[in-house]
Amino acid sequence: MVIVMKPGAPQEIIEKIEKKMISLGCEVHKSQGENYCLLGLVGDTRKINPSQIEANPYVEKLLRVQHPFKLASKLFHPEDSIIEVDGVKIGGGNITIMAGPCSVESEDQLMTIAYAVKKEGAHMLRGGAYKPRTSPYSFQGMQEEGLKLLKKAKEGTGMPIVTEVMGQDTFDVVEEYADILQIGARNMQNFSLLKRCGKSTRPILLKRGLSATIEELLMSAEYIMANGNPNVILCERGIRTFETYTRNTLDLSAVPVIKELSHLPIIIDPSHATGKWSMVEPLSKASIAVGADGLIIEVHHQPECALSDGAQSLKPEKFARLMRSIEKIAAIK
Amino acid sequence: MVIVMKPGAPQEIIEKIEKKMISLGCEVHKSQGENYCLLGLVGDTRKINPSQIEANPYVEKLLRVQHPFKLASKLFHPEDSIIEVDGVKIGGGNITIMAGPCSVESEDQLMTIAYAVKKEGAHMLRGGAYKPRTSPYSFQGMQEEGLKLLKKAKEGTGMPIVTEVMGQDTFDVVEEYADILQIGARNMQNFSLLKRCGKSTRPILLKRGLSATIEELLMSAEYIMANGNPNVILCERGIRTFETYTRNTLDLSAVPVIKELSHLPIIIDPSHATGKWSMVEPLSKASIAVGADGLIIEVHHQPECALSDGAQSLKPEKFARLMRSIEKIAAIK
Amino acid sequence: MVIVMKPGAPQEIIEKIEKKMISLGCEVHKSQGENYCLLGLVGDTRKINPSQIEANPYVEKLLRVQHPFKLASKLFHPEDSIIEVDGVKIGGGNITIMAGPCSVESEDQLMTIAYAVKKEGAHMLRGGAYKPRTSPYSFQGMQEEGLKLLKKAKEGTGMPIVTEVMGQDTFDVVEEYADILQIGARNMQNFSLLKRCGKSTRPILLKRGLSATIEELLMSAEYIMANGNPNVILCERGIRTFETYTRNTLDLSAVPVIKELSHLPIIIDPSHATGKWSMVEPLSKASIAVGADGLIIEVHHQPECALSDGAQSLKPEKFARLMRSIEKIAAIK
Amino acid sequence: MVIVMKPGAPQEIIEKIEKKMISLGCEVHKSQGENYCLLGLVGDTRKINPSQIEANPYVEKLLRVQHPFKLASKLFHPEDSIIEVDGVKIGGGNITIMAGPCSVESEDQLMTIAYAVKKEGAHMLRGGAYKPRTSPYSFQGMQEEGLKLLKKAKEGTGMPIVTEVMGQDTFDVVEEYADILQIGARNMQNFSLLKRCGKSTRPILLKRGLSATIEELLMSAEYIMANGNPNVILCERGIRTFETYTRNTLDLSAVPVIKELSHLPIIIDPSHATGKWSMVEPLSKASIAVGADGLIIEVHHQPECALSDGAQSLKPEKFARLMRSIEKIAAIK
Repeated sequence: MVIVMKPGAPQEIIEKIEKKMISLGCEVHKSQGENYCLLGLVGDTRKINPSQIEANPYVEKLLRVQHPFKLASKLFHPEDSIIEVDGVKIGGGNITIMAGPCSVESEDQLMTIAYAVKKEGAHMLRGGAYKPRTSPYSFQGMQEEGLKLLKKAKEGTGMPIVTEVMGQDTFDVVEEYADILQIGARNMQNFSLLKRCGKSTRPILLKRGLSATIEELLMSAEYIMANGNPNVILCERGIRTFETYTRNTLDLSAVPVIKELSHLPIIIDPSHATGKWSMVEPLSKASIAVGADGLIIEVHHQPECALSDGAQSLKPEKFARLMRSIEKIAAIK
Repeated sequence: MVIVMKPGAPQEIIEKIEKKMISLGCEVHKSQGENYCLLGLVGDTRKINPSQIEANPYVEKLLRVQHPFKLASKLFHPEDSIIEVDGVKIGGGNITIMAGPCSVESEDQLMTIAYAVKKEGAHMLRGGAYKPRTSPYSFQGMQEEGLKLLKKAKEGTGMPIVTEVMGQDTFDVVEEYADILQIGARNMQNFSLLKRCGKSTRPILLKRGLSATIEELLMSAEYIMANGNPNVILCERGIRTFETYTRNTLDLSAVPVIKELSHLPIIIDPSHATGKWSMVEPLSKASIAVGADGLIIEVHHQPECALSDGAQSLKPEKFARLMRSIEKIAAIK
Repeated sequence: MVIVMKPGAPQEIIEKIEKKMISLGCEVHKSQGENYCLLGLVGDTRKINPSQIEANPYVEKLLRVQHPFKLASKLFHPEDSIIEVDGVKIGGGNITIMAGPCSVESEDQLMTIAYAVKKEGAHMLRGGAYKPRTSPYSFQGMQEEGLKLLKKAKEGTGMPIVTEVMGQDTFDVVEEYADILQIGARNMQNFSLLKRCGKSTRPILLKRGLSATIEELLMSAEYIMANGNPNVILCERGIRTFETYTRNTLDLSAVPVIKELSHLPIIIDPSHATGKWSMVEPLSKASIAVGADGLIIEVHHQPECALSDGAQSLKPEKFARLMRSIEKIAAIK
Repeated sequence: MVIVMKPGAPQEIIEKIEKKMISLGCEVHKSQGENYCLLGLVGDTRKINPSQIEANPYVEKLLRVQHPFKLASKLFHPEDSIIEVDGVKIGGGNITIMAGPCSVESEDQLMTIAYAVKKEGAHMLRGGAYKPRTSPYSFQGMQEEGLKLLKKAKEGTGMPIVTEVMGQDTFDVVEEYADILQIGARNMQNFSLLKRCGKSTRPILLKRGLSATIEELLMSAEYIMANGNPNVILCERGIRTFETYTRNTLDLSAVPVIKELSHLPIIIDPSHATGKWSMVEPLSKASIAVGADGLIIEVHHQPECALSDGAQSLKPEKFARLMRSIEKIAAIK
């Protein structure tokens, strides 16, 4: 951490801050320039409350050196984490494909899609039972009924289940049925929910918020890990930009960035990122080429009848083609 | 709603969509151009699921005409809503000042600040007991202990209390102590929490999300209202932009926009918007000049010792000066 | 400047960098932490090429301490600059109102509007002769003919002229007619044009780019100043955000920020910021309340016939009301 | 185009607008809903000035149906454009690699790099002679001297040259030496420069602006094409987002979007997009996988001595590895 004092900061104030920092257990190295005085802090800076330093009217700014996450950091855990769910491995060089409908709509719909994606090589089944919708008047999901159907689909196909948990009130029931619990982009900084995830025995699929930085995503992973659950899978699903032709902008550079910063697996959701089925295949190929650990893809046999997100759902035959494309790219990595 | 068909869409597909729309209760007006065919839909469009239309590969796009909110809309409720809490009125031409510390830290701290802001004319006391923090290692608030101190401060000063509620697990206890429940920016689209707010008898202070549009803010208000609670106060607290000198960018144009679109009161939080105490006074003046219904301001008698957000807290004497400035502007409106 | 070395950077590499920095005239202060080694640089850091340091694979990052602008900086020029044009003063506590049509369209149109805004107290006449349009098929301005009309309007009303210069090819002719040369938002980082502005004897009204930071705006001012022209007036005209109800988002916090960082005057363009005439008056009032040095406002007597930007133009009677509102706010400052 | 009238708009105003639109050559289809009245316009809408319609206080908004570009549009030119420069083809399924230093710095530097990238299979040589720099105090390029060196490198290696042109004052000289003229991101809406490009006989490499939408990029291409030059190559080089770990965020979804909307070739600049050499290879692979027509990559044999952008320059051996990676991906497309 580096404290930059304002030009003209009185010597006694600078000394007072130095003493305070030393008393908190830091070493302080002062560099006095013509205009600015810098205080370089090394040692254990965890006891420092940055807000209190910045509140000093003679402090220009605080420059941070170290990333604020530890458990999620590659620095302290250099090997890639591999998360295993019912025999499916995520991370560590494996490419894991999660596929299924946006929402569970009926037994017939779910079974048709589940068997179709299984046949093409998907490893896990996705499907929403509790749906976060921008409008209170939109379909909110089949709820527990949907969870029961997911369980049935798992029994039939053998694929483990990933489904979203939206709040603490429904956490226990979702946890009972799901193999991986998904936290949606809009809940990425719902800290109460993250703490609850920390107490869960299920792995968490944590989606990046719409305008979140990668550091903020990793801090949300840190919340879960610091509360007791080390099994976090990160998911890039597009960020909000000024571009309107796609729903969001898929940030594929997040993959090599996260590989530098963290040991956690990172998967890509090209369906929500683009909002258009025609863009899912090219961006899936790019995702594998850039080094992602997997994909989560929306598939529906009748997109025009889907209760949500039909425009971004692939029909099973398009999903089949996509699987063949990415296999070839995965093979040459 | 207007459906734009892709150039070259077959006539039979267009007719099929027309019939479907008529069967859902709409009137359809077709305009066939050289390249594009437009279907203008009027009547009751609520039964239309836009996602299903957009999933049709011959549909270019869907253009929405009407705002998706109703209960929050000025169109259906032309008079300004006034929300009354313990004799304090918010909205309808009143200017309401909420002030207090970022976090409740101790009885002594809270009482000192509460009496100080009361003396300068604040109408309500703000103070966080449950704190949403980006890092799991930061101070998380005094929790129920903090709520008890807020109650004591209310008994002493007579000011009603506004404090944040972070999740469903602590909703009941916060509801018991607080007069207004604040929903933080990061929870603006925590739909489970919004539904719970809809069941509450307390007014809700709903903060705009960091990258939320005004329509999304009003849709979140609609969630609360559609679930039974009509008393929503909107709060602009700065949005995320590329500017780094301020913490966020205060969007003061949101005030006249919301006055055009909605009947709900809108207040401004200049403290979180800027992150710097030196900017709070000028932006407070601008907020009153632009027509806001009030302000929520962080005040601390010892910012350098504040456990959170010291850099943006006003000392009581600066708060006093701010109150005198805005009174003059309010007087000439 | 602070160089942060990567964890594990070899001692010899650190020493090599230290020596290099010393050879360039800096003092170097090393702080060795458990993971990171910091090199604090003070003294004359101008000869350092940050790109070369960052290219070192053992360098984690570079933290800048000082702002990169000098001539535009308040640190080196603490008193506010006042720019005088034909007796009109801009900056230093004066409030200057520039008003007129978006585009010069005809003699009749320009004269009508010029006399109308003069009557209500405007100090300068704005009007575009060369128009930057997103589409090559839109009206591109009356060009030199328009400049001649502006000159005529100046002779009639006595108001100096502010008009946009779009390129080097038309610089000389615009410079001949205009009193202040406006650089549009999309040209804020057109460095060839900025250099040409530096050679001009006319003051420059420099608009902030659509997604520019305030530091970038000040660096563009620095370009003009470093090339010989000290007379730069900054203009905030809204930045691009995700909000779509307004054309851009007016960043009024830019005013106190620029007052902290620079001595240059800052004026506000609420017309382009919002794109809607109904928002111009409230945001003009807020602009004056927040401390801006003036306004530039679009006025048209027949907005429905305007060749550009009709939707954001005030009719003269609305402009009159606006002038009365802001006078009251200016009086109490 | 669809005009949405405000609720309560008088019938006579609606009729007046209808008549006006008919007089301009459009067909008008009216849909009267409970609250809103829609006017669907088909036929030749080019004579309509949207600004004049939006200036009508009874108009709620205007919904556009058609893209505003024509010459750049796939609708009117369904086959991919192929641009040929000295035997090198860009577009139409070819993958073209442009490589070289950020800036031309010396004959020795340029020749070393030029022969190195030629050896690994690059098709064209990039190198900046006129450099757009944020600071007036940074290295501004070798200018005409640099152009002469580029010509020499072309003579030696046989590779055609791509280099940036920054303004009208230096256009003629750059045009004389360069085979492709690059327009930088910050000049994407420098309309005077775009018009000049329209008069050039050289193909133009047009970079997307930092916060530009794809439609705006295509409108800038349209400017060049409408002024006479059909040979435009688009370049995605990262857009500004809130992420700070990378310099910009590479928008790879722009590739399939542009393939849907336009016939122009689109190449990717992963060097400027990320600002970090370690990210160039993975994003280059993703670019080819997503369907880009080529890459433009910065290479330097001594990045630590580069006068600009050293941190994002690949050493020749890393460039060699990258070429082998992308060849494999290109092969399986």
